[in-house]
Amino acid sequence: MGMTDIKLNHLAIVVDDMDAALRFWRESLGLTQAGDVQSVPAEAVDIAFLTLGDAHIELIRPTTADSGVAEYLAKRGPGMHHLCLEVPDLDAKLAQLGESGCELINESPRERDGRRYAFIHPKSAGGVLLELYEAIPTVPKE
Amino acid sequence: MGMTDIKLNHLAIVVDDMDAALRFWRESLGLTQAGDVQSVPAEAVDIAFLTLGDAHIELIRPTTADSGVAEYLAKRGPGMHHLCLEVPDLDAKLAQLGESGCELINESPRERDGRRYAFIHPKSAGGVLLELYEAIPTVPKE
Repeated sequence: MGMTDIKLNHLAIVVDDMDAALRFWRESLGLTQAGDVQSVPAEAVDIAFLTLGDAHIELIRPTTADSGVAEYLAKRGPGMHHLCLEVPDLDAKLAQLGESGCELINESPRERDGRRYAFIHPKSAGGVLLELYEAIPTVPKE
Repeated sequence: MGMTDIKLNHLAIVVDDMDAALRFWRESLGLTQAGDVQSVPAEAVDIAFLTLGDAHIELIRPTTADSGVAEYLAKRGPGMHHLCLEVPDLDAKLAQLGESGCELINESPRERDGRRYAFIHPKSAGGVLLELYEAIPTVPKE
């Protein structure tokens, strides 16, 4: 069997109480928090990252009641929300998935903060909301 | 910030159709399957592993209607089921979690096939069914 070049980037967990979540994952379990809790008003969430090898657990707390993640929390309760895998060539992977009949939430990648990403619909990914991610290489400034 | 010695062992995904799940994760997405699909009659499941770095995605398909995982599938549909993290000292970690008030499904580790493991109740782990795992060192036979 060959090696694949796909690796875990992060596992996102939706929480209703960020302090309680950090008490469990950081204080009780002993994971290391990476950076501070960040507010992301554009997505109506607070987020925090915990280091897991060279990947992360991302804690997401919705800050309004009407976002997609808030609706998910209201419907299903706190728990694992989405899986983000890093791929070397996101455009090629999305084309390959589209050809095989997968439903893509983002037909072409979105881009923000030095990363390109696209979501695959859970109905095509065995019930998993799957994010595919590609790091954008940093180009040295002249 | 320090490093932690906790790492991902596997992320378990419950599926209702193993062939369809393998078509997505292996054929369409391109992950490498590790070994064949295994039947585990004692747990009434079929399982398959996909390599993700030095960890795995575990696909679980219940083979009867009355197991815990079958009930989970019937209630919530296919999707992410549990998260398994590897810790260096499982006994110490369980004691630490118990002291901090976490509800343990297995108060003391279960042991099978060269591994020791215990589950933490989702109500103590932010809605995540969390498995903690410790590899049992192989002792050379005399």
